[in-house]
Amino acid sequence: MHFRDSKRKVDYVLAYHYRKRLAQHPAGVGSPEPTHGSASLALVSNGGTGKGCAELQRQDGGQYAPQERPRPPGVEVIELGPLDTLEEEKRLQREEYERNLVEVGLEIEKDPENKSQGLSFVRIHAPWQVLSREAELLKIKMPTKKMYEITEEGGILKTLNEIWCKLTKPLQPQVPQQENTNMKSLSYPFSREKIYLYNIKDKDTFFDNATRSRIVHEILKRISTKARNSTGIGTLIANNVYDAAYPLHDGEYEGQNDDMNERKLLYREWARYGVFYKFQPIDLIRKYFGEKIGLYFAWLGLYTEFLIPSSVVGIIVFLYGCITIEGDIPSKEMCDQHNAFTMCPLCDKFCDYWNLSSACATARASHLFDNPATVFFSIFMALWATMFLEQWKRLQMRLSYFWDLTGLEEEETFGCFFFLFQEHPRPEYETKLLQKKLKNKSITTENSNEDEKEKLTWSDRMPGYAANFGLILFMIMLTFSAVFGVIVYRITTAAALSFSTNETTRSNVRVTVTATAVIINLVVILILDEIYGAVAKWLTEIEVPKTEKTFEERLILKAFLLKFVNSYAPIFYVAFFKGRFVGRPGHYVYVFEGYRMEECAPGGCLMELCIQLSIIMLGKQLIQNNLFEIGIPKLKKLFRKLKDERTEPKEMDTNQSKDPQQWDLDYILEPFTGLTPEYMEMIIQFGFVTLFVASFPLAPLFALLNNIIEVRLDAKKFVTELRRPDTVRAKDIGIWYNILSGIGKLSVIINAFVIAVTSDFIPRLMYQYAYSQNGTMHGFINHTLSYFNVSHLKAGTQPENSPFAQDVLFCRFKDYREPPWSQNQYEFSKQYWAVLSARLAFVILFQNLVMFLSVLVDWMIPDIPKDISEQIKKEKSVLLDFFLKEEHEKLKLIESFIARDKQKHKSGIKGERIRAASFCQFNRCQKGSFASFSSQHTEV
Amino acid sequence: MHFRDSKRKVDYVLAYHYRKRLAQHPAGVGSPEPTHGSASLALVSNGGTGKGCAELQRQDGGQYAPQERPRPPGVEVIELGPLDTLEEEKRLQREEYERNLVEVGLEIEKDPENKSQGLSFVRIHAPWQVLSREAELLKIKMPTKKMYEITEEGGILKTLNEIWCKLTKPLQPQVPQQENTNMKSLSYPFSREKIYLYNIKDKDTFFDNATRSRIVHEILKRISTKARNSTGIGTLIANNVYDAAYPLHDGEYEGQNDDMNERKLLYREWARYGVFYKFQPIDLIRKYFGEKIGLYFAWLGLYTEFLIPSSVVGIIVFLYGCITIEGDIPSKEMCDQHNAFTMCPLCDKFCDYWNLSSACATARASHLFDNPATVFFSIFMALWATMFLEQWKRLQMRLSYFWDLTGLEEEETFGCFFFLFQEHPRPEYETKLLQKKLKNKSITTENSNEDEKEKLTWSDRMPGYAANFGLILFMIMLTFSAVFGVIVYRITTAAALSFSTNETTRSNVRVTVTATAVIINLVVILILDEIYGAVAKWLTEIEVPKTEKTFEERLILKAFLLKFVNSYAPIFYVAFFKGRFVGRPGHYVYVFEGYRMEECAPGGCLMELCIQLSIIMLGKQLIQNNLFEIGIPKLKKLFRKLKDERTEPKEMDTNQSKDPQQWDLDYILEPFTGLTPEYMEMIIQFGFVTLFVASFPLAPLFALLNNIIEVRLDAKKFVTELRRPDTVRAKDIGIWYNILSGIGKLSVIINAFVIAVTSDFIPRLMYQYAYSQNGTMHGFINHTLSYFNVSHLKAGTQPENSPFAQDVLFCRFKDYREPPWSQNQYEFSKQYWAVLSARLAFVILFQNLVMFLSVLVDWMIPDIPKDISEQIKKEKSVLLDFFLKEEHEKLKLIESFIARDKQKHKSGIKGERIRAASFCQFNRCQKGSFASFSSQHTEV
Repeated sequence: MHFRDSKRKVDYVLAYHYRKRLAQHPAGVGSPEPTHGSASLALVSNGGTGKGCAELQRQDGGQYAPQERPRPPGVEVIELGPLDTLEEEKRLQREEYERNLVEVGLEIEKDPENKSQGLSFVRIHAPWQVLSREAELLKIKMPTKKMYEITEEGGILKTLNEIWCKLTKPLQPQVPQQENTNMKSLSYPFSREKIYLYNIKDKDTFFDNATRSRIVHEILKRISTKARNSTGIGTLIANNVYDAAYPLHDGEYEGQNDDMNERKLLYREWARYGVFYKFQPIDLIRKYFGEKIGLYFAWLGLYTEFLIPSSVVGIIVFLYGCITIEGDIPSKEMCDQHNAFTMCPLCDKFCDYWNLSSACATARASHLFDNPATVFFSIFMALWATMFLEQWKRLQMRLSYFWDLTGLEEEETFGCFFFLFQEHPRPEYETKLLQKKLKNKSITTENSNEDEKEKLTWSDRMPGYAANFGLILFMIMLTFSAVFGVIVYRITTAAALSFSTNETTRSNVRVTVTATAVIINLVVILILDEIYGAVAKWLTEIEVPKTEKTFEERLILKAFLLKFVNSYAPIFYVAFFKGRFVGRPGHYVYVFEGYRMEECAPGGCLMELCIQLSIIMLGKQLIQNNLFEIGIPKLKKLFRKLKDERTEPKEMDTNQSKDPQQWDLDYILEPFTGLTPEYMEMIIQFGFVTLFVASFPLAPLFALLNNIIEVRLDAKKFVTELRRPDTVRAKDIGIWYNILSGIGKLSVIINAFVIAVTSDFIPRLMYQYAYSQNGTMHGFINHTLSYFNVSHLKAGTQPENSPFAQDVLFCRFKDYREPPWSQNQYEFSKQYWAVLSARLAFVILFQNLVMFLSVLVDWMIPDIPKDISEQIKKEKSVLLDFFLKEEHEKLKLIESFIARDKQKHKSGIKGERIRAASFCQFNRCQKGSFASFSSQHTEV
Repeated sequence: MHFRDSKRKVDYVLAYHYRKRLAQHPAGVGSPEPTHGSASLALVSNGGTGKGCAELQRQDGGQYAPQERPRPPGVEVIELGPLDTLEEEKRLQREEYERNLVEVGLEIEKDPENKSQGLSFVRIHAPWQVLSREAELLKIKMPTKKMYEITEEGGILKTLNEIWCKLTKPLQPQVPQQENTNMKSLSYPFSREKIYLYNIKDKDTFFDNATRSRIVHEILKRISTKARNSTGIGTLIANNVYDAAYPLHDGEYEGQNDDMNERKLLYREWARYGVFYKFQPIDLIRKYFGEKIGLYFAWLGLYTEFLIPSSVVGIIVFLYGCITIEGDIPSKEMCDQHNAFTMCPLCDKFCDYWNLSSACATARASHLFDNPATVFFSIFMALWATMFLEQWKRLQMRLSYFWDLTGLEEEETFGCFFFLFQEHPRPEYETKLLQKKLKNKSITTENSNEDEKEKLTWSDRMPGYAANFGLILFMIMLTFSAVFGVIVYRITTAAALSFSTNETTRSNVRVTVTATAVIINLVVILILDEIYGAVAKWLTEIEVPKTEKTFEERLILKAFLLKFVNSYAPIFYVAFFKGRFVGRPGHYVYVFEGYRMEECAPGGCLMELCIQLSIIMLGKQLIQNNLFEIGIPKLKKLFRKLKDERTEPKEMDTNQSKDPQQWDLDYILEPFTGLTPEYMEMIIQFGFVTLFVASFPLAPLFALLNNIIEVRLDAKKFVTELRRPDTVRAKDIGIWYNILSGIGKLSVIINAFVIAVTSDFIPRLMYQYAYSQNGTMHGFINHTLSYFNVSHLKAGTQPENSPFAQDVLFCRFKDYREPPWSQNQYEFSKQYWAVLSARLAFVILFQNLVMFLSVLVDWMIPDIPKDISEQIKKEKSVLLDFFLKEEHEKLKLIESFIARDKQKHKSGIKGERIRAASFCQFNRCQKGSFASFSSQHTEV
């Protein structure tokens, strides 16, 4: 954790593989060139003993004067002919980069490159001077000495809060809290000028590890090398000059020894399945991993908490279905053997007429999900989604306040320094720009004044955009064709199985086909998901977005679009299209000559939607989130280990394994690649929970169970399996919020349609209040079934070897059509249109009502919690008082200065005047007082 | 415009009426008490000659030491028994207030109160010292010396822009522009410490008049008096201590003399009807009236510009209707005399069967507004509304940038000073709080520690909220009953007129009734509008909102709600309810025994909607906006003049009329009471333009015509008829934007319903594609008319003395119902349900399509124009460079200081050290350099 002097903390590590030809050619060791090379290295690192380095550095103390710089490395390259050019170039770039780092004040330590090839680490320490300078530049808010009390609500709220705290005591993670939780120290952007404001006990620990490494990372991003004209560590890693750059973890996370570090604490209280019931120690997570990751876990935590009430309501709705199943008249009527409804055959030729009561089981199961409580539940869930988003906004605001981010947007937009750093172009963009410049130069040789304004124009980007558009369209088509393929599979298999002579096979056709088809769907989704993830990344790269931020946003949008379509296409098909293009007996719709379009089960399409949804959701969660997330990193680790062992089988053992330092341990870990996959997974799940919730009220429950594991899984990954990520400041979850709110809006209209079109809710309502003789549901089944005269069946489609074909005059089918004895036989009946009107009216009513309620909820819940907005106001007034007091003291000091000055007045008026003038130019001196002082001065 | 020394500018004027008992009782003049009183006055004002005042003030120079203060005025009150207590109290409050003003550095001049009673003015001048201090506190951005170039787009855009500029040259107002329009000086919040940054040629003119008066206004708002514990000028005016407080106009607006001032310029180039075709000089408006009013006119201008394309499209749609009227088959069929459709009678007993061809004219007129182009137009208008809001966001951002408001939100939220000022509670709130405190004290006598946290609780506010809720509900009910009253009027009058024996009366029943009813509607709306405005204000006052901002927002919301309901209730009735509850022949719906519910004209309800809409819109605009706005101020002025003349008939003439000063002139003007009525008027108009645009495509045209006048009318009012308003900084138009966007959203669903339900668009479409034999519209009229067997008419409702009653077997009526010969006679037919389904499907489709398009437009148009965001970036980097350079220079200065210090080293190390230490504490000294300096120092 420290340099070899055991004093200076390692704040950042750069790792690289080096390869020396010299070592392999022992003759070259003594040659002057490499010695020269290592001599120039010695300036930045120690070259030999750690001690020497430390002393050397202390003398330099960041005051590396430019004139002392050795002659440019370019000269050396020519001399060092025998070295591998590429390797040498990299080495030179490293040297230059490290020299630049030393120049801005960082201190670095390197291992000696004493082997022919191997891994070497550059350890970076940021001294106080650098930290304070950069903290000021980055406007990092630090707590000042000034504390103020957080006003608590009085009365009943306070009591409730206390009870809540006591009740949840065992659920709270045991992390050391601030002693006085209702005091908050006033934070103020760090400023060296106002150093006395801050409570600096020890300059080494004033900035915590995360802040230190963040500062170093900002410097690393900024420093450029002239060779290849590249800027920042990102480009160097992209060019393989360095292998990796990462801050160090705080220590080991396991072991029973007493020296507690934050990583161990996080592991104990957060990143184990054993503590799944506890709240997350969000503040500690933020302190260790930074705001961006802290926000992710805060969001995930809030989402999981919000899933609890919706699961409970979902279970109640499901139980309501279970309880009322016995009293449900339509399913009773369907199961009644006496009410023999002879149904038309399900397939041509080979299927027989069948009795509706044989579909009794599905009808009863269908009632579990298709009952009036579902309507209530989907309204509830739409409002739930709005509430969740509102609460998230509030939590975000609260965290912003406690994490001192309230001024961040201001800095991002108005603080020039931070802004410029953030807006730095990506390495790929710069490369592309360079290419363009070079190309342009070869054409317009001397037109150099335009170079300055060079940027990628529309025509440069056109191919990228076109490729994007084309490929995304292609991918969506691919998804649709996969869905269609599964439909074809289902139709053909069903037909094939119907031919079967085996009785059990035939009776289980529907179950077999549905189950296998859904599993195929699931597998296709899983495979395409992985492909789409890669494709989205590649597509975004060829688009060459300018900044890291736009890159991330575009990647997310693309990946989301593709994965969303992929996950939901089969579900959309079942919900809105399946069984709607069947035609009618005697006039069926055929695909591929002779295969009838598939119908829904007699219990209604909602049942099938439910099966489809639950299997895809559960399967996706189990396989993708858990198996993949646990398995793949393990496999990768194994693979990397094997590879490392293969490439450097000997030297590794001898040297590094004897006492692995923290940087060695961290190097073995996986690098952190961003939060996008974690968010994506959750957003897709959010879609399952909200979009079709009308058909599957248990979805929130399964999501909840998954998330309880997911939180700890992700936590474990971050604490134990990944290198420590660079801490990134963020005020919000960015584009994800927009996606969430978009899904929330979409869910309203989709649920409206599911209830209106897919479920039997509206027809039942219509029957009960418009058509029923006595206001009950008796006769509903009869009402929904139309008559068909079997003599109208087309030749060749009549059931073969049917035992009771002779007895059947009319068969029934589920639709609202005119009976055969009507004038317009088999046309849609008046009931059909009336029910359709009711369905559509319901959609309009539901959509607008829920949208209105959502807007109302949004409007009623203020975005900033009241106590926080009051706190912010209070903080401001405390800050104001503080500065007014300070101003006052300053004034006094100036006055005492003036007084002293007067006493010493004899010693040269002129010198004093100049000093006073310069003094005034720097200071916030009170103009008035100073003016009077000045005039008095002049008079004297 | 100046104090009597003709040097110091008058930045603000306070006016009050005084009344002296002394003058009426000449015996009291010589008494010691009043002399004492005027002596204390002399400290603040001149008392006699203007010269004396100036000198006195210059010596004081804001350094009014507290110990010099005369003995508290409270003592005097007791001595001055004979004075009217109230008047005296006011006078003392004025004295205290003015003393406090002098104490913070303002300079004031007063007229001698040499009459028994009269009007007196307190003129306030802010010297440089106060201005600079307050400008720093308020963080007013001022242009610095540093200029930078605004990058212009190159290529085709530039050329287009130039052409546009040339074309619109005569439309540009002739106001002096900045010489170099593509240079912008870098603005930076004013800071006395960095005084050298700003281009200060003359301290008197560095801050322009608007800024000066704004600063004074801020001070006036802040200063409190102990008497009656009131804060700010607002409370004082509310308590009648002062009559008025206003900044001065820049001079006269008329007259041909050459000394051009900004007011005159505004009048010439903006506030005259003669320049209606010109663009508005927005920058000048902003400079003169402040950002808030500037934003209003910018918004109004943009809205008016946006009305141009929509008027053009509206005219085209209308012309399309005119052109296609000849080819319209349904209206042809209706007018065809041969197609004799015998219609059922329109009223019981007295009405006869009638021929549909007699309604030919309305059918043809109806086609003008009810044609397929209308559907296109309403989609267009929905997108237009979205575009308008997007463009407004962009323009707002552009103005923010050019007006240097880009950092304003930051200051509002984070700049403590500005924030605290803004958040100051309203006088009424404080009074209420005081009352509560007093009441509480009388109960819990000694519990004084709770007083600190006192605020109005839920129980205090409950009565206010309840009254609000109740009264708003009552008002809405009132509106509805007014609408219902008009309906009843229409039904009864129509019935009454039908009895008439006069043939012409009977034939014009419909026209007469409709026209009178609409006019009654209009009058009711106009009256209720005025009442509601007052009620909303009163309701908001009894709610006692805490700050001025919440007061304004709540007032706006309430007033908007009431006026919206008031203006649109009759239109909603015609659009969605009229003619829908008529019943059918033989089974009519009756109100009040014997009056049938009214039906729409045979041409369709859309025609009536159109008439209703156009009359209300035009009438409201003409009468309310123009007559009221021009007439009422004139009347008020006249009334005030008369009143003034009656109360002070003699003295006025002798003294003040001889040479009226600017403050006298401005005092006569109306005070500025806020922009709410102006915005409200426009928002209601925006509603007319968007909400029912499907029925009246000419609405945008009329709105455009109105607005062209409205802009100049408002301009004239601001320039010539109102006192100069206090300049208020604002970054956006606040809650109005939300209301606009809400109307935009509402318009989508309302237009969907108007097209689907009110117009005949869907039935025609259905007929053409589903029922027509040959795909044409022939037979449509026949299809929409149902048959009725006249023998089924209830006894007593048959037409009396009908000439051809014997010949009629069946009469027709407009509805889709089963014919008399069907099994379910007169039930809704299948067509009815099919058409209803189509209507509802259209609503869903239209709503979701348009909403999706709106979101797309919103997403595609970035909120910040690209050039502006680039400019802001550039400004930031210029600012960064600027400060880095400055930092560098500072360093150099410190170094020179150190060098000089070394030379003089002999003269006492200790003193120097202290100085250096104190020096460091104030300065942004480069830690490194200073440390090295310090250590060198110590070594020496």
